[in-house]
Amino acid sequence: MATVSLRDLLFSSLLSKVFLPPRAGIYFGPIRSRSIGYRRNFFPLKSCGERKLSTTHSSEAKCWRGDYAQLEKADIEALAKLADVSKPTALPSKRSETSSVCITSADQLRSYNTDWTGQFHGNSQLCLRPSNAEAVAAILSYCNQKKLAVTPQGGNTGLVGGSVPVFDEIILSMSRMNRILEMDEEHGIVTVEAGVPLSRVDSFCRERGFSFPLDLGAKDSCQIGGNLATNAGGSRYIRYGSLHGTVLGLEVVLADGTVLDLGSGKRIRKDNTGYDLKHLFIGSEGTLGVITKATFACYPAPLGTQAAFVGITGDFARVRHWLLDARRDLAEHLRAFEVMDAEAMMLHRSYSRGFRDPFREPHSFYILIETSTGITAERAASTPLETWLEKMIRSHERSDVIIAQDLTQSAQFWQLRESLPEMVRQSGPSVLKYDLSLPLTVFYDIVEVTRERLRQEALDAHVYAWGHVADGNLHLNISGTAPKAILHAALEPWLYEWTLQHGGSCSAEHGIGLLKSHLLARSKGTVTLGIMERLKAVMDPNGILNPYKLFKTCSRAE
Amino acid sequence: MATVSLRDLLFSSLLSKVFLPPRAGIYFGPIRSRSIGYRRNFFPLKSCGERKLSTTHSSEAKCWRGDYAQLEKADIEALAKLADVSKPTALPSKRSETSSVCITSADQLRSYNTDWTGQFHGNSQLCLRPSNAEAVAAILSYCNQKKLAVTPQGGNTGLVGGSVPVFDEIILSMSRMNRILEMDEEHGIVTVEAGVPLSRVDSFCRERGFSFPLDLGAKDSCQIGGNLATNAGGSRYIRYGSLHGTVLGLEVVLADGTVLDLGSGKRIRKDNTGYDLKHLFIGSEGTLGVITKATFACYPAPLGTQAAFVGITGDFARVRHWLLDARRDLAEHLRAFEVMDAEAMMLHRSYSRGFRDPFREPHSFYILIETSTGITAERAASTPLETWLEKMIRSHERSDVIIAQDLTQSAQFWQLRESLPEMVRQSGPSVLKYDLSLPLTVFYDIVEVTRERLRQEALDAHVYAWGHVADGNLHLNISGTAPKAILHAALEPWLYEWTLQHGGSCSAEHGIGLLKSHLLARSKGTVTLGIMERLKAVMDPNGILNPYKLFKTCSRAE
Repeated sequence: MATVSLRDLLFSSLLSKVFLPPRAGIYFGPIRSRSIGYRRNFFPLKSCGERKLSTTHSSEAKCWRGDYAQLEKADIEALAKLADVSKPTALPSKRSETSSVCITSADQLRSYNTDWTGQFHGNSQLCLRPSNAEAVAAILSYCNQKKLAVTPQGGNTGLVGGSVPVFDEIILSMSRMNRILEMDEEHGIVTVEAGVPLSRVDSFCRERGFSFPLDLGAKDSCQIGGNLATNAGGSRYIRYGSLHGTVLGLEVVLADGTVLDLGSGKRIRKDNTGYDLKHLFIGSEGTLGVITKATFACYPAPLGTQAAFVGITGDFARVRHWLLDARRDLAEHLRAFEVMDAEAMMLHRSYSRGFRDPFREPHSFYILIETSTGITAERAASTPLETWLEKMIRSHERSDVIIAQDLTQSAQFWQLRESLPEMVRQSGPSVLKYDLSLPLTVFYDIVEVTRERLRQEALDAHVYAWGHVADGNLHLNISGTAPKAILHAALEPWLYEWTLQHGGSCSAEHGIGLLKSHLLARSKGTVTLGIMERLKAVMDPNGILNPYKLFKTCSRAE
Repeated sequence: MATVSLRDLLFSSLLSKVFLPPRAGIYFGPIRSRSIGYRRNFFPLKSCGERKLSTTHSSEAKCWRGDYAQLEKADIEALAKLADVSKPTALPSKRSETSSVCITSADQLRSYNTDWTGQFHGNSQLCLRPSNAEAVAAILSYCNQKKLAVTPQGGNTGLVGGSVPVFDEIILSMSRMNRILEMDEEHGIVTVEAGVPLSRVDSFCRERGFSFPLDLGAKDSCQIGGNLATNAGGSRYIRYGSLHGTVLGLEVVLADGTVLDLGSGKRIRKDNTGYDLKHLFIGSEGTLGVITKATFACYPAPLGTQAAFVGITGDFARVRHWLLDARRDLAEHLRAFEVMDAEAMMLHRSYSRGFRDPFREPHSFYILIETSTGITAERAASTPLETWLEKMIRSHERSDVIIAQDLTQSAQFWQLRESLPEMVRQSGPSVLKYDLSLPLTVFYDIVEVTRERLRQEALDAHVYAWGHVADGNLHLNISGTAPKAILHAALEPWLYEWTLQHGGSCSAEHGIGLLKSHLLARSKGTVTLGIMERLKAVMDPNGILNPYKLFKTCSRAE
């Protein structure tokens, strides 16, 4: 059991309101009013938790730095001037105590040099925090001419080491470009700067009766630019789909300082004049250009939403059955369908003091479902979710259902799901995280074969599984007492090979970064990789943007 | 009044069933069962209509052919062999009487050389119709080495001259690659070859309880590959969004014969391993590669759908009000919101013999709305659409509403909208068609200023307007007795300048092709255009793929 923290207490006391007394069966509650629901993050994803993860990825040893220029004092002076074209309208960034445009002190640089997982540490001597695209352009133009390497950085919440320097790259932080520029309610379009935290855009839209198309656990810390650069998925993917479908325009600064206006700030949804270049930058992990502004479609919030937490006993085929049925019957009402397995629920039992099981007896799987209630709900005897759950519970005797009675309860269901990454971080000391796409036919098989493999290797480790099952996106987490390198050697590359052989992807939504750059050629094939490299050469001929990431110019230190 | 055709009679007799006797007010009907509805095209878009449009775009005169090789007899023999790696499973193509792999006869080549609008005529001596990607690769590899130009062709239903040769390019028809390869119902994923007509995929999905994400008027003739190459929009865009969001994978053959597998046939939705190259090809109009296979997400069909036809009196602000309200109140139920103006409805009066107005009195605008009925509809007193229309009709006294009573009536509403392109073609002799994106604030202003401009120029012409108003996509049609060149001179470039100055796009969904290549630089700016050209050079260094299109290598003959 972990030591008790204020967060544990807060979390457990809230949970007890929901789950005391726990009763099996189906529970009804009122429909919540027009809102997507307010989900508090009790565990800010930026915090590092009580226990430090072991840092096996001190990357300096095995990488080749390349022939980038060394940063000199004159460069710092010149760049500080170029960066400081500040606009007084920029809001103070929550993240940093300072509003400095140019950071050079070792103390202040530490958090910019270290990634969220604590695995990756850079050694940058300079972090620039410009407040507009012109300053970004001036900085990049200077760096491109001098061949100084640059690491663009958003909220630094990525899990694959993509947002921190490997050596002494200049950090280009977007955190001062944090303005929501405009919302056009008639067109359902919002335009923001790249450094706005996701939760702020989300709240901004919600207050105006709209759903922002993206939501994810790190929302309080992650930034829109980083979300775009990593093509973030998250829990609304099931409803609004990929960012490639919901981003209407971008402003991007290329390595040579060229500012590309790719439809940002426009009030149109369709534009078939030539290649749609914005898609190249979505998911390019800062290697093709720096996103400075983005325009999104946002959607009218449903009249009401309702969440339920379901316990399912049996094998994974039952989850697939529930999902298939939900997709068909709930159709346009379905807004979320998240799964966690019994082991993942065990994390709550182990790390939330006073946690009481939501159901009388434990189940094999737990599903969090969220639906919209629809325009006719107030005239009907029951909501779409209630109608559907009534049907499902009749044919699945060993299933339990709790329907959220209000917004608070709904938020608590979401906490059960969204606090898992932080919980698993506490569970260490050694934690390996995998973010896989898999066909549903083998979605949970990999969890079972991973457990079996660890048993065979006589390694004492837990395998926790959760994810956006409706999108085929599994978050597989291995946590054990053995040194991380031992766990790693037991599972890789076997686990990735298994994934690829079963038609999956080695990175569903976290990207490649530094951690997975050795997997890119195997994932894409050499032909596609060759084209990617040629596109990179077109956009960034000197290779100054986020070097060592994505492409295997720097092998992972292991 | 046009001469009476069989189609006119059929259309008018069907309409009379719906609209006789016409009554103002609100009409209720039963919810239709689980189906997206079957919309027959009485006017196949491939047919040329009774009157030929004048052909002002005989492009040979003013274009520079470039230094592409001349096709020789030995090339034809070699290419015929490379193309003929046929698979016996390929279905006979509806379009051509022959199942020939290699077409060289002038008679048979005529339809491949002429575009749907009748404006563009090529002079190709060879059409190849391979039945698999390997044959496409072999053909392109040969052509690339010999520097023979190639025009990829789908259903040849485009409106901007993108799918026919300008000179003697070899036509690479996809019509024999017409197999639906696989549907995975659990994953909601369908994989098809590029030459499958849209309506066949649509029916295939519907029969299995799914909605295909794309629908448009030309669905019986257009092909999936062409839809992708032109980034087709259509009437389901409001519900399922852009193809960039719904295409999960592509197979593409590059100019040098390289076959790129960009996730086609996979059962996963998320893959963040490297640049997502498929997006480059969506909307590239056959200039970067030839799409041979595609995998789409398809969506569970709603439990029921319901359509209504609304007449609105007053200015366009009222349409905007109805749209805004529909978006908010109908939210996830809204599946279509199409507008046509009073002039467009006049087309029906003029060209459908026996047509009776749906409402007692004419209106300024007509809206076609389609909604899903939702899971709770059967328990509720009224459907979402009925509930909403009741509210709207109370506050808009001079509006009339008819709710479709069954699938047939719903299909007839759709005919009123989808037959407009064919009607305007009959209305000539001179017809100019514009496909614009515009902010809603100025969406209809352009119609009014265009009418005013024609009046000032003393030109006798009608301006018909309809479109996917919810997506800001206006189809503006000018039809008059003056020679087309006169109308053209009166409106261009003024109309496009007006569009760009008001934040619009000169091509919402039809693309650039040959017709609008002179607009690309003005639309994109020279910087973005320069990057497009560099990407083209990476993918197709010899420029053999669909030359003269998109880029202004061939000025439009005027």
